[in-house]
Amino acid sequence: MASIFSKIVAGEIPSYRVAETEKFYAFLDINPLKKGHTLVIPKQETDYYFDLSDEDLAGMQIFARIIAKAIQKAFPCRKVGMAVLGLEVPHAHIHLVPMESERDMLFSNPKLQLSPEEFQAIAAKIRANIEL
Amino acid sequence: MASIFSKIVAGEIPSYRVAETEKFYAFLDINPLKKGHTLVIPKQETDYYFDLSDEDLAGMQIFARIIAKAIQKAFPCRKVGMAVLGLEVPHAHIHLVPMESERDMLFSNPKLQLSPEEFQAIAAKIRANIEL
Repeated sequence: MASIFSKIVAGEIPSYRVAETEKFYAFLDINPLKKGHTLVIPKQETDYYFDLSDEDLAGMQIFARIIAKAIQKAFPCRKVGMAVLGLEVPHAHIHLVPMESERDMLFSNPKLQLSPEEFQAIAAKIRANIEL
Repeated sequence: MASIFSKIVAGEIPSYRVAETEKFYAFLDINPLKKGHTLVIPKQETDYYFDLSDEDLAGMQIFARIIAKAIQKAFPCRKVGMAVLGLEVPHAHIHLVPMESERDMLFSNPKLQLSPEEFQAIAAKIRANIEL
């Protein structure tokens, strides 16, 4: 069965799209730790991040860096943190979270409740700062 | 001033070495979330992970995957999680943590207190499972 992320890539489930390439897709986490919290996934479904090919690991990181730089311009922060957990959705995904402190990356923190308009504005702001 | 991690690479500060290549170094986190919690760093000091070159980002991930696979063999777990925070030590580093649940990656969790003998045994066990 296709993962929820494969359905997002296919457009069967809507997402707040940030950027995409032929192989990768970036969109807002709808349970964000911070404004700008973005997920980067391979379009081809793979459960475990470290089962990706060398080429895909490398390509996904280089794409994630482009997104991280755009997040930091859109939402000024000390650094953009990265996390790969992946026990809840069986489709490899990188979390990118703008951080002021390491505590901003605690996934036990309460998630932000944002309106569709806020999500759209956040995605647009990141998109406007992407330098491919 | 050299970062604490540069001093570890130079051998000025001891570490529980797991593996190294010409460009990267892996060693045990001495404040581990779980047995097997390992750090991967570039030997060349760079503060922010996303300021690494494309080549180094890719190389570091491919090296991290080798370490992650060895950690999982040495310390069976559902997946090895990855995190890059980097606000405390200004030398890019990847955390690799064997996970049974996503809560195992909460950096607010109490850290394990291990003896030097335990650290040595953990590093040896991971080294014995590395497939380069």
